[in-house]
Amino acid sequence: MTTPDSPESALPELTRLRASIDNLDAAVIHLLAERFKCTQRVGELKATHGLPPADPAREQQQITRMRGIAQAAHLDPEFAEKFLNFIVSEVVHHHVAIAESHAKEATES
Amino acid sequence: MTTPDSPESALPELTRLRASIDNLDAAVIHLLAERFKCTQRVGELKATHGLPPADPAREQQQITRMRGIAQAAHLDPEFAEKFLNFIVSEVVHHHVAIAESHAKEATES
Repeated sequence: MTTPDSPESALPELTRLRASIDNLDAAVIHLLAERFKCTQRVGELKATHGLPPADPAREQQQITRMRGIAQAAHLDPEFAEKFLNFIVSEVVHHHVAIAESHAKEATES
Repeated sequence: MTTPDSPESALPELTRLRASIDNLDAAVIHLLAERFKCTQRVGELKATHGLPPADPAREQQQITRMRGIAQAAHLDPEFAEKFLNFIVSEVVHHHVAIAESHAKEATES
């Protein structure tokens, strides 16, 4: 039976919300794809110019900035910081791989 | 000395790339703020209609979809899946908190 509190009565709104979540996720994935193109190029630049893969000062600036943006958008700043750490650790991992492949090429050439 | 391979010579392009990364991050944070508004409402709906906080079937659909979108956008599907897991675990954590607060209200009223 469908009462105002039954699981079935939640379905129309749940379906609408999930469609919005799916649209937002698709947008985020496309932005992250673009972001990784940028960080891929940063990794190459760092490797060819002898710069270290990680940059703690830049990361600290990013954290402060992201927390501020999150706060203004009514998103938990703690979550924004965790999110940035998650992305940056993936990027640094890529940068180390790029640096190692450049070092290997330099040894072999 | 600035040679084509010196760290200093990488700075103009590095600065440009970092400005793009910062713009993309601001866009992602705003989309995630919007996404959390949706999942917050999903959490309330689930709590008031007796639906469980986590939904493994829905999560599996999201993973498959996100991997497809990532592949089309030339983003590592593994990363897209890890990203979704990161977001979903945060959301489920919120849903459990909402369900507990509803249960507490129901007991007290």
